[in-house]
Amino acid sequence: MSVLIVGSVALDYLETPFGKMDQALGGSATFCSIAASYLTENIRMVGIVGEDFPQAHVDYFASRHIDTLGLERVEGGKTFSWGGRYHEDMNTRDTLYTVLGVFEHFHPVIPDEWKKSEFVLLGNIHPSLQLEVLDQVEEPKLVVCDTMNLWIDISLKELKQVLKRVNVLVLNDEEARMLTGERNIFNAGKKMLRMGPSVIVIKKGEHGAVLLSKDTTFIAPAFPLGGFKDPTGAGDTFAGGFIGWLERTNDVSVANMRKAVVYGSVLASFCVEEFSIEGIRELSEEQIAERFGIFRTLSTF
Amino acid sequence: MSVLIVGSVALDYLETPFGKMDQALGGSATFCSIAASYLTENIRMVGIVGEDFPQAHVDYFASRHIDTLGLERVEGGKTFSWGGRYHEDMNTRDTLYTVLGVFEHFHPVIPDEWKKSEFVLLGNIHPSLQLEVLDQVEEPKLVVCDTMNLWIDISLKELKQVLKRVNVLVLNDEEARMLTGERNIFNAGKKMLRMGPSVIVIKKGEHGAVLLSKDTTFIAPAFPLGGFKDPTGAGDTFAGGFIGWLERTNDVSVANMRKAVVYGSVLASFCVEEFSIEGIRELSEEQIAERFGIFRTLSTF
Repeated sequence: MSVLIVGSVALDYLETPFGKMDQALGGSATFCSIAASYLTENIRMVGIVGEDFPQAHVDYFASRHIDTLGLERVEGGKTFSWGGRYHEDMNTRDTLYTVLGVFEHFHPVIPDEWKKSEFVLLGNIHPSLQLEVLDQVEEPKLVVCDTMNLWIDISLKELKQVLKRVNVLVLNDEEARMLTGERNIFNAGKKMLRMGPSVIVIKKGEHGAVLLSKDTTFIAPAFPLGGFKDPTGAGDTFAGGFIGWLERTNDVSVANMRKAVVYGSVLASFCVEEFSIEGIRELSEEQIAERFGIFRTLSTF
Repeated sequence: MSVLIVGSVALDYLETPFGKMDQALGGSATFCSIAASYLTENIRMVGIVGEDFPQAHVDYFASRHIDTLGLERVEGGKTFSWGGRYHEDMNTRDTLYTVLGVFEHFHPVIPDEWKKSEFVLLGNIHPSLQLEVLDQVEEPKLVVCDTMNLWIDISLKELKQVLKRVNVLVLNDEEARMLTGERNIFNAGKKMLRMGPSVIVIKKGEHGAVLLSKDTTFIAPAFPLGGFKDPTGAGDTFAGGFIGWLERTNDVSVANMRKAVVYGSVLASFCVEEFSIEGIRELSEEQIAERFGIFRTLSTF
């Protein structure tokens, strides 16, 4: 079994009320893959970087048994970079710049030996690239799709084509409202279930996450944190933890997806505690098990 | 055992995107008492109404075994009335008017035979009136205090005096932030635990509720509703259900308070589905048990 993860790999500039960080390792494929690596050893990353991308990062991926065979490196090219500033309340952010670099002409190429990957995570990238991935993989057992407000805004048609071909859609509450025009997330969930996926996972940040299927409503709280430093990548981390657990257990039942939501939430809780990937750079099994255990007690009555 | 409930009784004007209602039965004591009445038969209501208050409402209270011995009726007086309009998103509202009427000179008088009530709910009224109640009751087993942004704004000193003398504080997330200056509700909770109460319950509306004590963090989801018509009284209903369960079981342990939060949430979910008290006017044990059962499945993984 293995998880194929396709997304962006970036060198970001981050600014929050708690500090700044330049040349910060980021991108959806990065966060997804690192998160998944705490649950499974079979991770296949597809993305693109420029010549400026430090070898140390590639070595780090390898150290976390993330296979970077699908990580294209363009000589003379510049790695995708996003600069963002979070406001005091950490709920809103301004994009300071976006330098597409090598990402501008990126077309994901899935290595032949990866085409039969059982689990596929379409990280947050343009829906037309997600479609290119779907055209290359062969009968995956489960496809999870993450997306964002930008694609709902500018590429709704392609996104809807993607949705027809995925099993699980992961997005946040604002995006769910944008995509459906429904303010109420349960009504939004019902509409999205008619767009293709059989399971919808709505991330609500500090308010937790909701998993919806035809017959199931599962509501997970967020891990109770006294604060956080940088929310960048939390959603990607959630998605990576989610699919990582499903691959590890080779069980795509909705019942098992409840646990997957909790693993996603545990990993996201570590992610936001530090800048960039620092919060999830090196976690022990015990740290993850401890927070998973706390989740069990949080909602028990 | 019995629950003493002190608060306002009102005839409100309500306007939401779903309709309007005039002369709507309302007030904190009203919602608290009705909610509690689904869990215990020993409810003692203290409040004040004018001559215009329909006898049918008093009869309804009696039909729900709510003892109105402490409900003062002022001949020639006018019942307290609040007029409010909810915005399209239902999260914000404008006060159209407030007519204090007989409430202006209200001073709660606890009948002698009620002074030894074991459970006391200080419904949302001016903190100085809540203090007057505390001065009259004799060694209650548990005092729960509800409050609102208005009192944090204009009567903070009196509110802080109240807090020193209560066991449980119930308030919403915005109020918790106002009271403590902390944006993070867990940090806000820690600060409030130093103000007197040993348990803090923070209501987060559609995002559920959080119960915090020195050693416990309990997070309850909100009941998944596809929509709601009128949020008025939901917080009072929550508090009434909360204390009603504690009285019924005569168990004030924090473990039992988890269940109390869920009963409060169940009753609040019915409250918001209709205008005024209509959603909780007549519920069956089965309806309540059914939603309580659904709560058990919502967060299980």
